[in-house]
Amino acid sequence: MKTKKDIILLGSTGSIGESALRLIRENRDKFNLIGISAHNNVKLLSEIVNEFDVPNVVLSNEKNAKDYFGKYELNVGSLCLIDLAKIKCDIVISGIIGMSGLHAAYTAINYGNDLAIANKETLVSAGKFFINKSKEKNVKILPVDSEHSAIFQCLNNKNISRLDHITLTASGGPFLNTPLEYFKNIKPQDAIKHPVWKMGKKISVDSATMINKALEIIEASVLFNLSSNKIDVVVHPEHIIHGLVHYKDGSVIANLGLPDMITPLSVALSWPNRLDLKLKKMSLVNINKLTFFKPDLDKFPGLKLGWDTLQSPYCSPVVLNASNEIAVDCFLKNKIRYTDIFNIVDETLNFYNPTKPQNLDDVIEIDKIARKHALKFTNKVD
Amino acid sequence: MKTKKDIILLGSTGSIGESALRLIRENRDKFNLIGISAHNNVKLLSEIVNEFDVPNVVLSNEKNAKDYFGKYELNVGSLCLIDLAKIKCDIVISGIIGMSGLHAAYTAINYGNDLAIANKETLVSAGKFFINKSKEKNVKILPVDSEHSAIFQCLNNKNISRLDHITLTASGGPFLNTPLEYFKNIKPQDAIKHPVWKMGKKISVDSATMINKALEIIEASVLFNLSSNKIDVVVHPEHIIHGLVHYKDGSVIANLGLPDMITPLSVALSWPNRLDLKLKKMSLVNINKLTFFKPDLDKFPGLKLGWDTLQSPYCSPVVLNASNEIAVDCFLKNKIRYTDIFNIVDETLNFYNPTKPQNLDDVIEIDKIARKHALKFTNKVD
Repeated sequence: MKTKKDIILLGSTGSIGESALRLIRENRDKFNLIGISAHNNVKLLSEIVNEFDVPNVVLSNEKNAKDYFGKYELNVGSLCLIDLAKIKCDIVISGIIGMSGLHAAYTAINYGNDLAIANKETLVSAGKFFINKSKEKNVKILPVDSEHSAIFQCLNNKNISRLDHITLTASGGPFLNTPLEYFKNIKPQDAIKHPVWKMGKKISVDSATMINKALEIIEASVLFNLSSNKIDVVVHPEHIIHGLVHYKDGSVIANLGLPDMITPLSVALSWPNRLDLKLKKMSLVNINKLTFFKPDLDKFPGLKLGWDTLQSPYCSPVVLNASNEIAVDCFLKNKIRYTDIFNIVDETLNFYNPTKPQNLDDVIEIDKIARKHALKFTNKVD
Repeated sequence: MKTKKDIILLGSTGSIGESALRLIRENRDKFNLIGISAHNNVKLLSEIVNEFDVPNVVLSNEKNAKDYFGKYELNVGSLCLIDLAKIKCDIVISGIIGMSGLHAAYTAINYGNDLAIANKETLVSAGKFFINKSKEKNVKILPVDSEHSAIFQCLNNKNISRLDHITLTASGGPFLNTPLEYFKNIKPQDAIKHPVWKMGKKISVDSATMINKALEIIEASVLFNLSSNKIDVVVHPEHIIHGLVHYKDGSVIANLGLPDMITPLSVALSWPNRLDLKLKKMSLVNINKLTFFKPDLDKFPGLKLGWDTLQSPYCSPVVLNASNEIAVDCFLKNKIRYTDIFNIVDETLNFYNPTKPQNLDDVIEIDKIARKHALKFTNKVD
């Protein structure tokens, strides 16, 4: 019997990559890293290749290839990233943020690989196509972010007809207690300071605007086949409860844990089994208090877009995601104000109402057009 | 295909019986009540017979039989109670408190009936015999109290090797914030005011001394085959989280819900399915805050007996349970002080160390002797 799982890690140098490598490093008897990719960070990529002895290596941005010093051959360019995802393995981890990871993740499924996905944007924009393809190919899509992993762990498919609703928790981000009148002066350096999770800049800003949670609503709808009225969001600053499943008999099943990406990653990579990770144990006595609040939609209007766009599930989520990526990028470059992020997303959603995409190419086309419109609105900001 | 489950309800006039009848009343398309028993309350028993059209009726205390007015024949006496449990059905609910329910519950299993058990004392005193018999007869023992139902719902048998520990929550009872120096003056009327649950007097006092939780530790050990070091207790006054299962990968699965016995009863009667109960929905936003504390073993020394007696799992739990029943009874009759309850239990445990029981008769014999000793200590109290 094969005892190790073969893993391909797309996006090995980002925050998900870092957690995945920590997990694999500490469980070398369970996992075998057979392929990795990075986009820019060729130094770290080389180090990972040498540490984990990874035979299949891809750098998607060819510009930095000359600095590679890994002991296996380097393949360069985005087509090689697609080829990497085709290699037969037990599970592909998609840790590439934004839309760049879309094709590679889809290819993984299309070639019969299970997919552990940490990439919200992919499921938000093209979720239905992913789910349909995964059913066709009989492969699993395993969520890696803590909220969806929580729901995944608490849902019992046998009881799905008795599901009342699910609750996604939100830390509330760094501006939970900041008065609305200060919001226009929020700077990028304030927005990327997330109170709970150490994450990339884009995701940290999404968390600060709570558009992160809007994307998660859409993601949950896709992953668990739920209509928008079955998904609730509660602000929970301690972020110990990651998600709850409410059944119609009054039972609520929840997933809790200290914030550590390694746990949901481990769940995805081992399911239906679990690993022994020797982590710090969660103690409710030490935590002492868990609090819960209704999200403030005046301060975080972006959150509402999660439910709103689910009314037209095949198109608006793509526009939401694309315009948000543009707006956040402009905010991080100090071109627009924090409060403009929502305005640009909202204007783009109102202006551009594409027809329902029929395939992945349509999604990419809609995404491209939405970005153009968003950029146009960004330039209009004074 | 049979669509209704045939139910026998032992102890139909107590608090468990009341909840069970509410559940059956609201789900007449799912359940068919084919047998009931009561001990004293012949008026209520008669009403239940007439309302639910129950053909098999037992009154275990013959004294009150003359007042029976149900439309089916009444069978009288404790032997008839045993016969009732023998009738083939889908599930027997044991809602009889104390040791009186022991034989009938055991008979239910021995005759191949699944058993929904709300009777701590039975599992504490004779749990191993129940578990072994249920395995032999291939029947299920389904916990009905909220804490064990919580653990039952959260445990995934596939992951049992990766279980780190479980946490049972305790409301802390009415004296959680009462200073220790006032404990000697606590009166029965104070002790039976439980802050969360409406329960019988005996259980309310157990909750006030936290000996209730000691019994639950033993019960959990038996039901889920856990050693004492795998069972933690946390005081959680809001009593919204009923139990937690901590896995070695850092994931914690918890069961939450508004306090209502009907939910765990419904879980036991429908498992692995669930019912649609139209209950008030739990809202974390309305609850706002959940708090957690370390139990104060100076104020509640009885709690520690749960772990202590698990060191000799075949005997001391019987003595603990028996001596506690005597002490609580004397306290409720104003014969001893609140603080004497623990002292009497502790003295009995220290004085009487029986040999390991080999069968149910041994358990009953040990129980009887322990009661005598406890009563002796009770009479010595000045």
